[in-house]
Parts: sequence; C-alpha cells; structure tokens
Amino acid sequence: MKRFTLQIGIALSGMVLLFSGCNQGGNAANGALSSSAAEKVYVAPGEQDEFYAFLSGGYSGNLTVYGLPSGRMFKEIPVFSQFPTSGYGYSEETKPLLITSHGFIPWDDLHHPDISQTNGELDGRWIFVNGNNTPRIARVSLSTFETEEIIEIPNSAGNHSSSFITENTEYVVAGTRFSVPVPQRDMPINEYKGNFKGALTFINVDPEHGHMDIKFQVIMPGFNYDLSHPGRGKSHGWFFFSTYNTEEASTLQEVNASQNDKDFIAAINWKKIEEYVNNGGGTEMPANYAHNVYDESTHMARSTMKKKVLTVDPTKVPGAVFLLPTPKSPHGCDVDPSGQYIIGAGKLSADITVHSFDNMLAAIEAEKYDGYAYGIPILNFEEVLAGVVKSGGLGPLHTEFDGKGNAYTTFFISSEVVKWQLETWQVVDRKPTFYSVGHLMIPGGNSRKPFGKYVVAMNKITKDRYLPTGPEMEHSAQIYDISGEKMELLYDFPTHGEPHYAAGCPADLLRQNSKKIYRLDENNHPYSIKSPVDARVEREGKDVHIYMSTIRSHFTPDNIEGIKVGDRVYFHVTNHEQDFDVPHGFAAIGANTSEILVMPGQTKTIVWEPKQVGVWPFYCTDFCSALHQEMQGYVRVSPTNSSIELSWSVGE
Amino acid sequence: MKRFTLQIGIALSGMVLLFSGCNQGGNAANGALSSSAAEKVYVAPGEQDEFYAFLSGGYSGNLTVYGLPSGRMFKEIPVFSQFPTSGYGYSEETKPLLITSHGFIPWDDLHHPDISQTNGELDGRWIFVNGNNTPRIARVSLSTFETEEIIEIPNSAGNHSSSFITENTEYVVAGTRFSVPVPQRDMPINEYKGNFKGALTFINVDPEHGHMDIKFQVIMPGFNYDLSHPGRGKSHGWFFFSTYNTEEASTLQEVNASQNDKDFIAAINWKKIEEYVNNGGGTEMPANYAHNVYDESTHMARSTMKKKVLTVDPTKVPGAVFLLPTPKSPHGCDVDPSGQYIIGAGKLSADITVHSFDNMLAAIEAEKYDGYAYGIPILNFEEVLAGVVKSGGLGPLHTEFDGKGNAYTTFFISSEVVKWQLETWQVVDRKPTFYSVGHLMIPGGNSRKPFGKYVVAMNKITKDRYLPTGPEMEHSAQIYDISGEKMELLYDFPTHGEPHYAAGCPADLLRQNSKKIYRLDENNHPYSIKSPVDARVEREGKDVHIYMSTIRSHFTPDNIEGIKVGDRVYFHVTNHEQDFDVPHGFAAIGANTSEILVMPGQTKTIVWEPKQVGVWPFYCTDFCSALHQEMQGYVRVSPTNSSIELSWSVGE
Repeated sequence: MKRFTLQIGIALSGMVLLFSGCNQGGNAANGALSSSAAEKVYVAPGEQDEFYAFLSGGYSGNLTVYGLPSGRMFKEIPVFSQFPTSGYGYSEETKPLLITSHGFIPWDDLHHPDISQTNGELDGRWIFVNGNNTPRIARVSLSTFETEEIIEIPNSAGNHSSSFITENTEYVVAGTRFSVPVPQRDMPINEYKGNFKGALTFINVDPEHGHMDIKFQVIMPGFNYDLSHPGRGKSHGWFFFSTYNTEEASTLQEVNASQNDKDFIAAINWKKIEEYVNNGGGTEMPANYAHNVYDESTHMARSTMKKKVLTVDPTKVPGAVFLLPTPKSPHGCDVDPSGQYIIGAGKLSADITVHSFDNMLAAIEAEKYDGYAYGIPILNFEEVLAGVVKSGGLGPLHTEFDGKGNAYTTFFISSEVVKWQLETWQVVDRKPTFYSVGHLMIPGGNSRKPFGKYVVAMNKITKDRYLPTGPEMEHSAQIYDISGEKMELLYDFPTHGEPHYAAGCPADLLRQNSKKIYRLDENNHPYSIKSPVDARVEREGKDVHIYMSTIRSHFTPDNIEGIKVGDRVYFHVTNHEQDFDVPHGFAAIGANTSEILVMPGQTKTIVWEPKQVGVWPFYCTDFCSALHQEMQGYVRVSPTNSSIELSWSVGE
Repeated sequence: MKRFTLQIGIALSGMVLLFSGCNQGGNAANGALSSSAAEKVYVAPGEQDEFYAFLSGGYSGNLTVYGLPSGRMFKEIPVFSQFPTSGYGYSEETKPLLITSHGFIPWDDLHHPDISQTNGELDGRWIFVNGNNTPRIARVSLSTFETEEIIEIPNSAGNHSSSFITENTEYVVAGTRFSVPVPQRDMPINEYKGNFKGALTFINVDPEHGHMDIKFQVIMPGFNYDLSHPGRGKSHGWFFFSTYNTEEASTLQEVNASQNDKDFIAAINWKKIEEYVNNGGGTEMPANYAHNVYDESTHMARSTMKKKVLTVDPTKVPGAVFLLPTPKSPHGCDVDPSGQYIIGAGKLSADITVHSFDNMLAAIEAEKYDGYAYGIPILNFEEVLAGVVKSGGLGPLHTEFDGKGNAYTTFFISSEVVKWQLETWQVVDRKPTFYSVGHLMIPGGNSRKPFGKYVVAMNKITKDRYLPTGPEMEHSAQIYDISGEKMELLYDFPTHGEPHYAAGCPADLLRQNSKKIYRLDENNHPYSIKSPVDARVEREGKDVHIYMSTIRSHFTPDNIEGIKVGDRVYFHVTNHEQDFDVPHGFAAIGANTSEILVMPGQTKTIVWEPKQVGVWPFYCTDFCSALHQEMQGYVRVSPTNSSIELSWSVGE
C-alpha cells in the first residue's frame, strides 16, 4: 500500500516538475495588487527592515542574515565552511574552529537554526545551527554575528534532527539521521537491522556564556531520525523526534524505507533522563570528539578533544521514552505555541497528523501500548491522536504557527502552503509556491510567542523565477503577508545556498546589542599591539613574527627586510581603528591562504611562506579611505643563507 | 601644495565618516516619491529583471550576478576563491584552476569585470575579471556562468589596472599596481626609484574559444598603475592607464606618493606595439606563470606552467607610448562612448580632467613635449586638455556614460554622484550616496553603446543602511533612475563582498544563451559513466575509483564494502538527470574537503581518505525530490590488513 503511494508521489513529483517549467506564477506585474505588494516589501533608502531572518545556507555550510520584508541579505556568517572573504577557517585564529576527530574539515551542510529562548520566548542571545555531514552543533553570537563555538557529536552520522533548543535554552538537541554501529566497528552493512543505533544527543548550554557540553546521548533503535522540536509550556521537559526507515533497510531506501504504513515520532522525557543521569545513571563510553571555542578576549579559537560521552539506554529509564505511530515517513515534527499539539507531517501522505500531548500523557498513564520496539513502548495511535488535517495537498513537510490559532504547513509535492486551524483541523487558505517548498518560517514560529505577520517559504526548485545563470542557480524564497485572513504572496527573493530552515525575530530584539567595534583595551590577543609605536619584527628561528598596525592609511611597519626563503612569516595585524565600519584587510602576493579582514580593534594572523627571492608587496584589501591605494608595503626576501639582518621601516 | 590638499582630504574624509553615522539618508518612506520608487524596483513574482549586473566581489575573490532594478543576487560565481558550496577549488576537476607559480592559492582579490565586445558593443560571450593579489586574469563563460580559464601575469604585483578589453576583444589588458624588480631579485627596498618597473600586459584572446595567451608586456617606469580603459571608435588601437606614485616613493606612500602636483595617464598605442612584436620586436624573458583551462567536454581543468614572456621596452617603439600629465593622483581613467575623451579623476582633487584624443594626436604630431620620463615623452598638459569639470565635489574617482552626452562621476570624499555634460563640461545634477562611493556602473557604460536607464553606485561604507550585523557588514550599492533629467535614488541593496566595479547588460543579451544542463552524450570526463548500469568500483593499489550515478532518488552503487583504512577513495559522481535544475550533491562523513554539487549531465570527483574502521554514510546534499532523505548509502571501512573483497550493491 505504501509502495502505491510512493509511486503516486513520484509520478506527481514528475508532473510538478514538468508543470513548473512555465513562467506563469504569482501576481501580475500591474494593477493594484502588485502596487500594494511592491510597497509592502519596499524598504526605502535610510530605513531599515522590520525583522531579521537567519536562513541556513545548507550545503554552503554557513548561515545567512536577511531582512524582512525586503528579502535583502545583510551578511553571510561563516560557520562550518572556510570563508575566503574574511579569512575564516584560514587565519591562525579561526582554523581551530574547523577541527574535528577526522582532522581539519573545510565544509559542512548546515540545516536548522534556532534562536535561544528564555521562558519559551526568543531572547536574542545566540543562534544554534547544526552541521549534518560531520555531526556538529555550532553556537553563533547575536551580538558579534560570529561563530563562537562548535562541538562535535560522537556516535552520530547525518546530524539532521538538530539543532533545536529547549525553552530556557537548557539544552540544544542533536539527533542522528543515519544510524551507525555504536561504537563504530567493521561489520557488514546488510547486518544493519538490530545492530545499528541512533543517538539522540542532549547538549547542556551554560546560561551565562553559552558554552556547550554533551550531557547525555540516548542510544535509540537503528531508525533514521529526521527532525525534532522541543515541548513548550505544558510539554516543557519533553522533546519530539520524527523517524523514518523504521524498516531498518540498508539499501535502496527510496523503496525499502517506504514500506511501513506508519513510522514513529519518538517522545523523550529529557527531564526524567536528566534526573537519571544526575543520580549516576547512564554508561560512560570512550569517545573522541572536538570541542572548539572562540575566545572574544584573545580573538582566538582553541580546539580540544573530548574523550568520553555518557550514553543512556532508553529501556533503563522507565517512563522516559515512547513512540507515537505517525503515518507515511514523517519528516517535519513541530509543536504548537501552547505545547499541546505535536504535528507529524508524513511526507508521502496527503494528510497531516496531529498528536495531543494530553492524550499522550493519558495513554502513558493507562499503558495504552501497541507493543514495543526494542523494548520501547509504542503508544496506540488512536489514543494519542488529536486530529487529522485533510489537506487536499500532497507531501506535507513542515509546519509553523502564527500565534493566533493557525498553523501553516508546506507541501513539497503539490507545491503550496496550506493554512489550517488548530483544534478544528480545517483548512482555511492555501497558496501555491514556486516551486516545491521545503521549510517555511514565521519569526518566533518555534516558540511560545510567534510574530505572525509574514511567512517565508523556502523553495527547493528555482527554474525560471530569476534571470538564468547557467545550469547552477540559487534557491528561492517567497514572502507572504499573513496578517489578514488570506495569505498574500508579496515577493520572490533568491537565497545564498540551500535554505533548509530559518529562524526570525523582530529587529528590535537584536539591534541594540549588535557590537560595533572590538575595544582595543580589551584585546588580549597574545600578538596584538596596543599602539602603532609597538610595531616590530621578531625572529624565532625560521619563524618571523610581525607585530603590525593598520590605521588609515598605512601599515606600520610598511617595509620589512631580512626575511629569507624558507621562513614562516606571521603577520599579526591589529586594526587600531576604533570607529564603526572601518575594517582593513591584509594580503601578500603568493600567500597560500586567503586574506584576513580585520575589524576595528581586532587582531588576526596570516601566515606567508616566501618561496622566491625578491621584493614582494602587501596591501590593504578593503577600500578604507581616499588614500587606500597608497596603503601598501614591501617585504624583501633574501636567499636562505643571506646574512641580511631584520629591519623594518615605520614610514619616514 | 599637494600636501595641503591631502590634509584637507583626510580632514574631510573624517568629517564624512562622522557625519555619515546618523540615519537620515535617502527618500522618506511615505508619499508619492517613495511609492514610485517602490514600484520602479519591484519585480513581481513570475517576472524577471531587465538587466544583468555583474559585481566584483573584491576580497571575496568571486563575481556576483545581480538583477536590476531589483538588486537581487542570483549567483556567486567562484573565480579565484575556494567555494565550499559547489566544491570549486576542492573537487579534483577544479583544483587546477587555482594553481599559480606560487603553488595552490585559495583566494584572490577580484576587482574589475568587463564583458566581451564586438565592434565596441557588448556581445555577451564572456566576462573577464582580474585577481589583484597574485596577478591573474580569469575568463568566465556567460553561457554556463562558470570560470573557464585563468592566466597568471608575470612581472606584476597588485594586478589592479585590469581586466579591460579592447573593442573587438582582441586583447584583455592587465596593468601592475605595484612596481617590482623585473626580473625579481634580492635588492634593498629603498633603491626602488629607477630600479623597480611596472609591467602593462596585453593578453591575446582567441576569437573563437576565448583562450588567453600573453602577447607582450610593456615594461614601464616604476610608477603605480591604477586603472585603465581602452580607446574605442576613433581611439581604437590605444589604451589608457592612470598612474600615481610617479614620485617612486617606497615608504609611507600615503604622504610620499602625494607630492607631485600631476601624475600621468599613460597612452599606449597597442596596435603599433603589436606590429613591432609581429615583426620580431621585443625581448623574450624567462618567466614562470600558470595557465589554467577548464574543458567543458571533460568537465576538468588542467594547469600548465609557461616559461617565457615577450617584453617590450617602450623607448624602443617610437610613437607607441606617451604620458599625459593629469592632476592629483588620478585614479579612474575612463573613455567616453565616442572614444574622443579620456577622463582622469584626480582622487585628491575637486575637479575632473578631460583629455582630448584629437588633441593628443596633434600634440604627438607636433612633438609638444614637456620633457621625458625614463625616455618616454611627456605631452604638454594644456595641449592635450579638452576641458575641466569644476565639480564642486571632492575626491572624484570613476566616470561612466549614458550614451546621451552625459557623464556620471563618483566622488568618494564628498560622497555623491555628479552628472555633467561632455563638451560643455557643465555639472547638471548631483545626488548624495550613502556612503563614500567608489565605482559606479551603467550597463554598457564601458562601450560605444551604453544603456543609460540606471546607474548603480557602489559604496565603501555601509554603517546604518541596513539592520546591524555586528562589526562586520556587507558593503552597499544604490540604484538611481537616470532616464530623466535628474537622477532619482530608487533603492539600497547590500553587495556580497566588496564591489569594486561592475559590468551590466540587458537581460536579453544573455537569457537565450544560458545553458540549462550538460548533455550526457557530450560528457567526456574520463571517469564518467553513461548510465547507472555502468556503475562500478575499481581498485588500483591504494586508490579506489567509484564510478557512481545519481538519479532521483538513489545512488548507484549505494553500499560499498572492501574499502580499507589508508585507501584513497575517489567518488566520481555523474548526475544522470537531464532536466533543468535537478542537481544532486554528494558528501561523505569526515571527508577533509567540501561537498560536490553536480549539475545534470556533469561529473565531479571528491576524494575521501578513511582513517577509521567502521560503517560510514554518504548522502545527497541537495533536496532533490520527495524521497531525497532516502538518498544515501554506506561505505564499510575495514582495517588496512583486511582481506574483505571489494563489493557494492546497486539496490535490491
């Protein structure tokens, strides 16, 4: 039966693809509607957007910052990927952020941002994101808009049902998409079933500085864990994970993982498990995973390897883990603002399944089980069900909420956003998307207090929405006004990378706390200098350390002699500006690395290994003043055996 | 005297910086003007922009594609920088593009795009861009929107007065910003004067396939060469380069390179030099520079090192090179659509200097010289002058043209665009920019036929124009409607990277030629497979080659056993889709490289070196269908000494 649906799904998907090739979507360009939409998304010169939107970059590995309603991108925050623009992942200070147990990795696949919360409302301190491929969670400061910390997740693979936070940011949660042998070992792939395991990881977040530490991992059956969301309000203390491939197939999952009519949403009572481990429960397991922390005071990241992790067998903690049957390979797993409803969107279904938290508690209390999976109780489907949304669409994926009793679910196959009412389960509106929407986002939509003015649909297929750019093009987002009864499509805007999910908040939550400069008197970088008069060059064997200053519009020192082929030259550049928006950049010809872009008050280090005798220039890469073009210097490189002494000029 | 101006400049610059901190720029949000601007930049869902704009990314190293009037970014084309999003500079196929004489370099600083021309009009075949730091010129296809070729420039440093093309794309021209010893040698920096040289390089472009080859380098005096533009129409055959630091200062150039009241615009008769070298003139010099070519048929780049370059002493070719005195450190050097006027913008000046091509020819004819610089005739200033624009602004930088007799010049210090008339030299309009504008761009503005509907100002300082994003923020562009008598500011949009310059063209010039897929029957990648049935795994010693297929929604093979620790595993992924906009991505856990994003019909290779025994998943990184989440596989990694044979599954 499921195979039948699957085939329909594929056929319909093909139809959508064919159908969507023609350029007929959206509003007409003329007339009142268009005019109104134009004004609604227009942010006039000198004005600012109303909301921040943080879109995942997906396979870019980075997080992008947009304004709503304009759809303009204000920053790409490098997280898991090297970023030549600023030197992230190339500079000596930031390279440690990309260290893993597999060594240095220049990339990852970033999917789900979530903003920190206090009492279930956005508090605007940090945003957490996940790395999928080499499982990691990163924390980004919403004051500096820079990555501050990355922790690797052991016993995981395809860290997809991540990173979502509990309503006081007690935990950021990561769930493995792919199950693997735990611990890893050499075994036949076709012995997957019953042997592979899925780790759901709860990472403690320090309430003061945000530092992360793995508290425990629940070692679950070898399903695929797809998405997750926290309980809130009455369901605070629980966490919900959608699963697929409960068949535990290990080949051609396209077919073999789509056999069961229902997979599960796993409900985890993390408070109970927390109590269990606080009382000495769980099993410490050897592990090897990186914990990388950027210190804003030293402007430097440090990587350490952690050697153990606490694992929990879910069958050892009675009352902590239950499985809620959910039809047709549930993908999205969303919780409404009240915490009462858990929405499971079976991606091969036409309907949306809504579970009730109260019903779940009652079913647990009454032990309404339909058996066990590897010792974990499976709750009776009808007992936990709150309602079914007869959508009329196909391929529901994700749901967000407007805080006014409405839910909005995306449908990938039928390419639309469907608005429906909580509790009546009635569809009240639907609008097409162009094309094949994945996630959607309402600012605060994953909290107790959504700001239900706009919804952003993030589409997987772009085709003709923009001027063509060859075979490869950006993905596309669409913004809808949801302040009225009916959704109104306002605008299309391209996204940078693949936007899997997004988090948004009102501009005022962050605007005042946004850092403008780094204070020089707080700069504790070991190679910083407090003033240009401290500029100098020091040799330690083959290593040469240049303590360099930048200030409009010169380097101190600006010329250096006594460098030899085979040296390793460290340019430690301190930007002595203390005005907002006066970065300087630094690049030297032939350096086998990127530039560094140095913000006011900051110190960054680039390494240059001269291989050829000669006189080689360096220069400022950021147009900083009317005399920017004059901001340059030279390094004289002599043969290895040269006796020329170190010397440097400070401009005379 | 010049020092005096310099100090005013610095003081004014400071004032602008202070002044620009407050948020009062631009149109008010309400009222008829705003409404009209909103509609003018609004491109309704389902419609497309009117113009392409290619903005340099500056220190991002890449080229970005925008639509006008909307200001939306449609693609970032990786050129000189590694791009984790697609695997550019990480995949085996593209790594050779970033090879230089200094080894592999993951970054550069990209400044000036120029679209290929035929008969002085844009022909939309290619766009050329320069790498500043490690001097290179790249050619990007305007059919695939991908980088196809990069050539390194020897004897250069800070390749800034580049890359501009002649009016039949005979040559793409590169001029060194920093002079250096030619050939490079170990010598004291303070012996710069008279010893360092500046190379101006003319690179032949094959009219059929666009391949580049250095024809000759003119070895000029040791000035700094800042910008350049070709002659056109009557001045076709000439090329003009602005210079500064004719003082030949080598330290604190901020002060020392601003002493001379006039520097020069160098006029190069490249047709005469071409004839000279075609007749055996010039000196062949040993050199070492990379020439990297991407072959669309094999989907692969190849790097070769060139070993010699033809140099020309300008004093050996009578009548080929002249110097036009130009006040106050000229930066921009622009030629009007008729080819008659050469505009020199002295960046420390209030005025704009316009030279006349006819006057120049007459002065040459009459030998109206004011002496010589290193044997090169200096033409008399008054003899070549056509007019002076009394601007009322300060710090002119760059000029573009609307094809209706008007020129538009940016002023960095007074932060404005000034519109003036050719031949009357009268200022007719001015509008502020927010803040500190560098280049500006009118589509086709560097050709005989500009499309004078919009001008885009590219601003160096952003401050409060957008929601704050910490100390680092994007730069900012502004679009003005110039179809009327007065310029009208329409919109602010952020840019990705630092937009030094841009090139634009009507959408229709490129739209029809934009490639949608790579044809499988034209895929000659040596590791491609024509169909999923050819999928296989082959071992060659420690190297394992996986011939892999992707098609919605599975990999073939999807599971692989017999891989051992210490192997070097090449995943050669062919995307067998032949529909537009159906990429698949590929990533494997722990790979020390980026993902690969594979377009329909394309083959790309990622290398994975497993270090740990276990069963490790790989997956598709681009959400490709309703069953994308099922598109995965595993690799079993056994110990180095394991006797497990290679095997793989094709889904059963």
